[in-house]
Amino acid sequence: MDANVERFLAKARAEDAPFLKPRFTGVPTFMRAPGTTDLTTVDIGLIGVPFDLGVTNRPGTRHGPREIRNMSSLMGFRNHQSKIIPFDLCRVGDLGDVVVDSQFMLDDAIPEIEAYYHRVVDNGVTPITAGGDHSITLPILKALGKKQPVGMVHIDAHCDTGPPRAGAKFHHGSPFFHAAEAGVLDPKRTIQIGIRGFAEHNWDYSYTSGMRVLHIEDVYAKGLPAVCREIRDVVGDGPTYVSFDVDGLDPAYAPGTGTPEIGGLNTFEAQQIIRSLQGLDLVGGDVVEVSPPFDPSGNTALVGATLMFEILCVVADATHRRRRSTSPS
Amino acid sequence: MDANVERFLAKARAEDAPFLKPRFTGVPTFMRAPGTTDLTTVDIGLIGVPFDLGVTNRPGTRHGPREIRNMSSLMGFRNHQSKIIPFDLCRVGDLGDVVVDSQFMLDDAIPEIEAYYHRVVDNGVTPITAGGDHSITLPILKALGKKQPVGMVHIDAHCDTGPPRAGAKFHHGSPFFHAAEAGVLDPKRTIQIGIRGFAEHNWDYSYTSGMRVLHIEDVYAKGLPAVCREIRDVVGDGPTYVSFDVDGLDPAYAPGTGTPEIGGLNTFEAQQIIRSLQGLDLVGGDVVEVSPPFDPSGNTALVGATLMFEILCVVADATHRRRRSTSPS
Amino acid sequence: MDANVERFLAKARAEDAPFLKPRFTGVPTFMRAPGTTDLTTVDIGLIGVPFDLGVTNRPGTRHGPREIRNMSSLMGFRNHQSKIIPFDLCRVGDLGDVVVDSQFMLDDAIPEIEAYYHRVVDNGVTPITAGGDHSITLPILKALGKKQPVGMVHIDAHCDTGPPRAGAKFHHGSPFFHAAEAGVLDPKRTIQIGIRGFAEHNWDYSYTSGMRVLHIEDVYAKGLPAVCREIRDVVGDGPTYVSFDVDGLDPAYAPGTGTPEIGGLNTFEAQQIIRSLQGLDLVGGDVVEVSPPFDPSGNTALVGATLMFEILCVVADATHRRRRSTSPS
Amino acid sequence: MDANVERFLAKARAEDAPFLKPRFTGVPTFMRAPGTTDLTTVDIGLIGVPFDLGVTNRPGTRHGPREIRNMSSLMGFRNHQSKIIPFDLCRVGDLGDVVVDSQFMLDDAIPEIEAYYHRVVDNGVTPITAGGDHSITLPILKALGKKQPVGMVHIDAHCDTGPPRAGAKFHHGSPFFHAAEAGVLDPKRTIQIGIRGFAEHNWDYSYTSGMRVLHIEDVYAKGLPAVCREIRDVVGDGPTYVSFDVDGLDPAYAPGTGTPEIGGLNTFEAQQIIRSLQGLDLVGGDVVEVSPPFDPSGNTALVGATLMFEILCVVADATHRRRRSTSPS
Amino acid sequence: MDANVERFLAKARAEDAPFLKPRFTGVPTFMRAPGTTDLTTVDIGLIGVPFDLGVTNRPGTRHGPREIRNMSSLMGFRNHQSKIIPFDLCRVGDLGDVVVDSQFMLDDAIPEIEAYYHRVVDNGVTPITAGGDHSITLPILKALGKKQPVGMVHIDAHCDTGPPRAGAKFHHGSPFFHAAEAGVLDPKRTIQIGIRGFAEHNWDYSYTSGMRVLHIEDVYAKGLPAVCREIRDVVGDGPTYVSFDVDGLDPAYAPGTGTPEIGGLNTFEAQQIIRSLQGLDLVGGDVVEVSPPFDPSGNTALVGATLMFEILCVVADATHRRRRSTSPS
Amino acid sequence: MDANVERFLAKARAEDAPFLKPRFTGVPTFMRAPGTTDLTTVDIGLIGVPFDLGVTNRPGTRHGPREIRNMSSLMGFRNHQSKIIPFDLCRVGDLGDVVVDSQFMLDDAIPEIEAYYHRVVDNGVTPITAGGDHSITLPILKALGKKQPVGMVHIDAHCDTGPPRAGAKFHHGSPFFHAAEAGVLDPKRTIQIGIRGFAEHNWDYSYTSGMRVLHIEDVYAKGLPAVCREIRDVVGDGPTYVSFDVDGLDPAYAPGTGTPEIGGLNTFEAQQIIRSLQGLDLVGGDVVEVSPPFDPSGNTALVGATLMFEILCVVADATHRRRRSTSPS
Repeated sequence: MDANVERFLAKARAEDAPFLKPRFTGVPTFMRAPGTTDLTTVDIGLIGVPFDLGVTNRPGTRHGPREIRNMSSLMGFRNHQSKIIPFDLCRVGDLGDVVVDSQFMLDDAIPEIEAYYHRVVDNGVTPITAGGDHSITLPILKALGKKQPVGMVHIDAHCDTGPPRAGAKFHHGSPFFHAAEAGVLDPKRTIQIGIRGFAEHNWDYSYTSGMRVLHIEDVYAKGLPAVCREIRDVVGDGPTYVSFDVDGLDPAYAPGTGTPEIGGLNTFEAQQIIRSLQGLDLVGGDVVEVSPPFDPSGNTALVGATLMFEILCVVADATHRRRRSTSPS
Repeated sequence: MDANVERFLAKARAEDAPFLKPRFTGVPTFMRAPGTTDLTTVDIGLIGVPFDLGVTNRPGTRHGPREIRNMSSLMGFRNHQSKIIPFDLCRVGDLGDVVVDSQFMLDDAIPEIEAYYHRVVDNGVTPITAGGDHSITLPILKALGKKQPVGMVHIDAHCDTGPPRAGAKFHHGSPFFHAAEAGVLDPKRTIQIGIRGFAEHNWDYSYTSGMRVLHIEDVYAKGLPAVCREIRDVVGDGPTYVSFDVDGLDPAYAPGTGTPEIGGLNTFEAQQIIRSLQGLDLVGGDVVEVSPPFDPSGNTALVGATLMFEILCVVADATHRRRRSTSPS
Repeated sequence: MDANVERFLAKARAEDAPFLKPRFTGVPTFMRAPGTTDLTTVDIGLIGVPFDLGVTNRPGTRHGPREIRNMSSLMGFRNHQSKIIPFDLCRVGDLGDVVVDSQFMLDDAIPEIEAYYHRVVDNGVTPITAGGDHSITLPILKALGKKQPVGMVHIDAHCDTGPPRAGAKFHHGSPFFHAAEAGVLDPKRTIQIGIRGFAEHNWDYSYTSGMRVLHIEDVYAKGLPAVCREIRDVVGDGPTYVSFDVDGLDPAYAPGTGTPEIGGLNTFEAQQIIRSLQGLDLVGGDVVEVSPPFDPSGNTALVGATLMFEILCVVADATHRRRRSTSPS
Repeated sequence: MDANVERFLAKARAEDAPFLKPRFTGVPTFMRAPGTTDLTTVDIGLIGVPFDLGVTNRPGTRHGPREIRNMSSLMGFRNHQSKIIPFDLCRVGDLGDVVVDSQFMLDDAIPEIEAYYHRVVDNGVTPITAGGDHSITLPILKALGKKQPVGMVHIDAHCDTGPPRAGAKFHHGSPFFHAAEAGVLDPKRTIQIGIRGFAEHNWDYSYTSGMRVLHIEDVYAKGLPAVCREIRDVVGDGPTYVSFDVDGLDPAYAPGTGTPEIGGLNTFEAQQIIRSLQGLDLVGGDVVEVSPPFDPSGNTALVGATLMFEILCVVADATHRRRRSTSPS
Repeated sequence: MDANVERFLAKARAEDAPFLKPRFTGVPTFMRAPGTTDLTTVDIGLIGVPFDLGVTNRPGTRHGPREIRNMSSLMGFRNHQSKIIPFDLCRVGDLGDVVVDSQFMLDDAIPEIEAYYHRVVDNGVTPITAGGDHSITLPILKALGKKQPVGMVHIDAHCDTGPPRAGAKFHHGSPFFHAAEAGVLDPKRTIQIGIRGFAEHNWDYSYTSGMRVLHIEDVYAKGLPAVCREIRDVVGDGPTYVSFDVDGLDPAYAPGTGTPEIGGLNTFEAQQIIRSLQGLDLVGGDVVEVSPPFDPSGNTALVGATLMFEILCVVADATHRRRRSTSPS
Repeated sequence: MDANVERFLAKARAEDAPFLKPRFTGVPTFMRAPGTTDLTTVDIGLIGVPFDLGVTNRPGTRHGPREIRNMSSLMGFRNHQSKIIPFDLCRVGDLGDVVVDSQFMLDDAIPEIEAYYHRVVDNGVTPITAGGDHSITLPILKALGKKQPVGMVHIDAHCDTGPPRAGAKFHHGSPFFHAAEAGVLDPKRTIQIGIRGFAEHNWDYSYTSGMRVLHIEDVYAKGLPAVCREIRDVVGDGPTYVSFDVDGLDPAYAPGTGTPEIGGLNTFEAQQIIRSLQGLDLVGGDVVEVSPPFDPSGNTALVGATLMFEILCVVADATHRRRRSTSPS
């Protein structure tokens, strides 16, 4: 056992940390991290956005955060490949859910979510979010990119750069159109991975704005190592966000989602992509579109929880580096 | 076999009617009635409203009409207790779904639904609707009650007479507040049956406006025959609507719904209540809150389809009587 | 503990009987009775007929016997109301499944099943069968009624006295038409209980042949005690068969079936009806139409297993009396 | 709206109480009550015991507390029949889960649970517990009855008064044998309701020790009002515990349990029984045997949560009266 | 957006095409194509055969067409890899279901299905079929190959070239034995891909008749590109049929099927194989063995619908070329 | 058809072997092998251990043997890749279940299981076991390795070499720590494949004792052929056991398990690994951690049954060679 682990475990035992308990016990917070609403006590905030007003097909992602929390009790504390112990690098807490007042009106709800994330960002907290449908990433990016547009690593079956639909500005097929138009997302530093399905005509904006689009066929033609290199080429050194829509995975791996598309990534590949992001200047991330009502085995929530942990590892590493570089010597 | 049945069957066989085919075949319309959008060809229109923007808890009723249609293939053509063959009394067609443009904004969607039902009513078509969440009954009543407020037989766990919530005028907990306030529903001729759950504080309006509220405890204390008599006393001879929220049933019978409450009616009781309405001046009806994602056995959709058929029987009888009384001698 | 129980348990312990083991262990036979194909070793044979060639709607009853066997491990050995210990009164064995060669042709399969039951009956074994769809009761009755037509207590949503359909002599909607026509079922000594659904026009034969039909509305109007008396009046002292189609129950209790009809009996009522048959000259029985693929909770198979145990109790009592009356003094 | 409700709601709004939020939001505590481990801050403690080491058939009740908490968000705050607002009468908190160290050894785990409840009782906190299998009620009773044996209202399919089995002192079929033998349960003041199944031979102790046993047949023969009177006759004025095993209900209502028995109570009857306990000197209660892995629709957890709320109402009323009577004038 | 797409979309919008509506609305036809029974109005007919009389293990494929139609609403209109818009190349309609009279007798049903497809083929309509079990491909081939035997690309876990079984000529394990023997399938131009399972002894005929058999091990040893080349080598330029049994996929991807075999293809591979068929003279295709009762997540129906769309793309391309080459210049 | 198959089938037909019957018929034994408890009649014993006292998270593996038996009816008799017909090489029987008396106390149960396997081994029977949780492999190894420590090919997500936990010597995370410490498992001849998850800190013992650990990342980096060679290098010629924990697979393939970890093997890879073991001196094997309550599609039990068949093939080949080498010439 390496020394870091030994030290970490000793501390956890001294504190009788929840993750030492049987996995089925206790009121579940994300990763069994401490629950708090005090933004000054955490470096990284794990946040739920129980929301599905933006879906175009099957609803249910409003129930995502609870089930992801539930399944996240199966997580451990250390990434065996990268050796990262996120809880050792940063103060990590479960900030609870973003609860909007406008439960019935998407256009009113999005600004409420945005206001929440401004508070988070203004307090210097790095957010990692469990959705909720993909429309929630727009308000998150609005907060994170307000000073400087962020780049993005985006795994998904769909580009989500559709124009507004009749009757609503926002929905889960358009966040990145709005984010780029609003100047909070840098399309030149955006890469979209796993794209497929038969709705390509909605996503002209990805191409015209300069996003890099890797269809699933491209991923398998290039191979994962080349894809991982291409990610780094595209996003470079600037602040970068990770957005993982579970429909980027094949529905065999993540059936519980609103607009499943067959022929997607498997979870091993997803983990390798996320782990390859270590070293980037990651400023936040999310896992979205987990819809428990369509997930009879619970597997999609487990996938969501695990990918959230993977994102936590690389984001904690980046956050740790940022904090050290900005702290007074 | 009585003569009516023999004649009806002979005609059906001559036309090779869909209901003579195996139940699992064919693209399913409601009750395997002919699909049409020509409002002049039907007396009674079976209508789907795939909608769940108004829900306060679990979504999924947008998938209700498809599953109710699917299960409605199990229906026969004649009510064995009342002997009613609705398809013999009236021209019955499946008018398809009400598709709203405003998929993300409840307050904009409700008027769209209302516009649809005005067309239905203006064409003299009696609507029987499969929801959708209960917020859709408001626009239906607005169309049906525009000349004269209607009375209502309302089976539900909840009164749904809540005031507007912050952020939205409409939702599935308030349709009958709005309907009564708009003068399209006569609260004095409204009876609410099966009420329970622990949210009574939302429903003061039922009492202050003069609706008759029968809690589930009242139903069992009085007994079904007395309840059926009380219904007739309350709604009288005027035009009357039937609204059946499947959460009026116990969730053992209808688990696939958004806000289930234990301790409800069973399906036999529900059928007896609906059948007792024969003879009233019924001008329409609905079955709402069937949420297929929460219905692993499909039983709730079957219940929804069967209660829709029961409503069709008594509404067809009333429609037939109205047509005869208004037709030139 | 009464003396019978004490003696029975002592014997079971001496033999290390399977039912003393944890319920989830062992290869499951019906009621954990000994498996055998030697017809001379049992008084009562528990038989599976994994068959669904006769269904008109949803298939799956071919998987019924395995799941009923599986769930039957939850049974005990003694009926607490009647005090009957069937295994103490008779030698009870699991005879395995009737496996037909004609897996794809209903008309050829039915005679194969009949041949099997002739062997059972000719060996003096009283059969209790787990279906399978209801078409299997015809060949069973052909064997049981060959010397003398039997009476029948039939719990079901459907009369199953339909005429042959185009293309097939037999199916699960017609066994009792054929049985009565073949002279193996005495329609005057047949009572059908729980009838409903909207397909009454198929069942003229019930009325014209003189069967007693109790619709579910009749059952609740008369009350269970009167129904139980009426059963005895109809079937009298002659040899009588019990056929329980689980769709006689409400689908809340038995969702896993092919043609569910809401508004049915509950399981307590079903148990009371079966227990009331004690004292009749019962010559066999069946539980049919359990369809595991439509039974996500497994509850229908549990219901099937329990009703099979209830039937076993009253049939064992009758068999025991028959054997005593015919044995040399 | 009555004045109590108005006052209570005003206070809740001032505090932005969690129960005012949408039901699908937030980390779920029981009834969305505040979570705390400080025993001095509550009058009534809602406690989870995620435990299934004591089961004899299907496991899974270790997952009960989480799902009951999840579903308990559907509860309101006031019982519409009794008008009780438990949170207004008492300080109610979620004390979290009892986590035992001895996860693999039943005999070691039971004393650990007992130690926990001694702390609860010694702090004057009235416990209401969500199990867990029924073996947990023994350690609870040991704490509650240590000064004076308690009476018990016990709803269940099984008496659970079995003798020790080979290999273990404790299991979920024997808690009340041990409790009575230990002098913490007064068998003369114990009534067992809903008993059935075919394992009666295990429960001689119920009769020999003087417990009142109402089989399900007795319940329906006497009628609910008589049963409720009989409860009061048996338990009288002394301190009384309520133990509700969800298998007392019919599995149509509560399929997610380890040893289901058909022919049980429905939920309306269960609610009426619990509500009838108002006025007794209730010192605690539990809902046990909810097994989420066997509950695909989630209905059993909803039933468990609702019955827990019903028990909370009558226990809060009793606790409130006890506190008033013992507080200095 | 390319010009084709723009033109196609403009036309669709002008016609208010169903595929522009939310995916959960409307009575579902395959791909939301227009429903019609007029064979003169379509070039390609999408046909359902709700049939499972031919299964040897689990039934349920009779429910396949309805669920595939339901899930096919998730399809778009254009293949992003091949750029094919099938609806732009050909007139595509949903012809409804083949309903056989002989619901209980396989040997009688197969000729009925054949008669239907003769009408389709005689009208110059290219059929794409959603099964149903694999026995239905025999009558389809009899119609398509009556003038000239067709070649076949066959993806499956099983060769389905078994000899007749006792008791039935036809079943879902033998269609290609019969088709080759009847001279409507050219075994030399037949390739079977994905074969595995432990029933190889049934398929001698594949080898003796000259079919190319690629076991799943061969597929992975050769690699997909080589497999795709081998397909073209085998089937050449002649008329070719595509038959996709979803059990060719691993059951992780397609659990809802009757005879699942682990260790199969994934959906990405399946899509690549089908897309590689572009340019062949494809005269029809099918997706068979989708069994909704064994598909709790609905994923298998989604897979079936998507593969049907993939087949539609390559068949539409071929049909379009055939029509151009045969139309007068 | 090769001569072996022809001969084998002829014999099976002469004996009317159960595997010739439809797969859904009969009381299911493993692979439909004959059931027996006479250890002298078999060379290889297929054994169920319905046990989950050792689990640390979700229970349910006590139900594993029944469902694996049920699904194992889908197996054939011959491995198409290796051509092995295990039933032709060895006498194979289903020995039933190991039923422990100590149902509630893990530490007492483990020795009971050990005693059973000593009898098996002492009778010269090679055991292949369906679990049950992984704690059962310790007592199996104690029997198999008592004369000479065995090597092991271990596929799993977890090393299961954890130290004893407080409160229990044994559990499903520690069998191989105990086995190596007891001298019945040779850690130097042990290879663990597919390891992942975030609990690495528990498994220091694997490294310190000299086991070869292949993380899932290693598997994909090396490629399957290299992994298969490495297996042979590690285990060499000595007696070797195969232990397959289904959580070694990705939960898309095997969701029904207690501690799923995403990013695992697929079933094709698992089959290739097992088949590569042909030629080793295999002395037994197991498939563990199949938990039916978490397996709504039944796929995990099918996977378990198929892998058990794959293990049977290579173990039968080894057993056959051993018998031949030790039999008098």
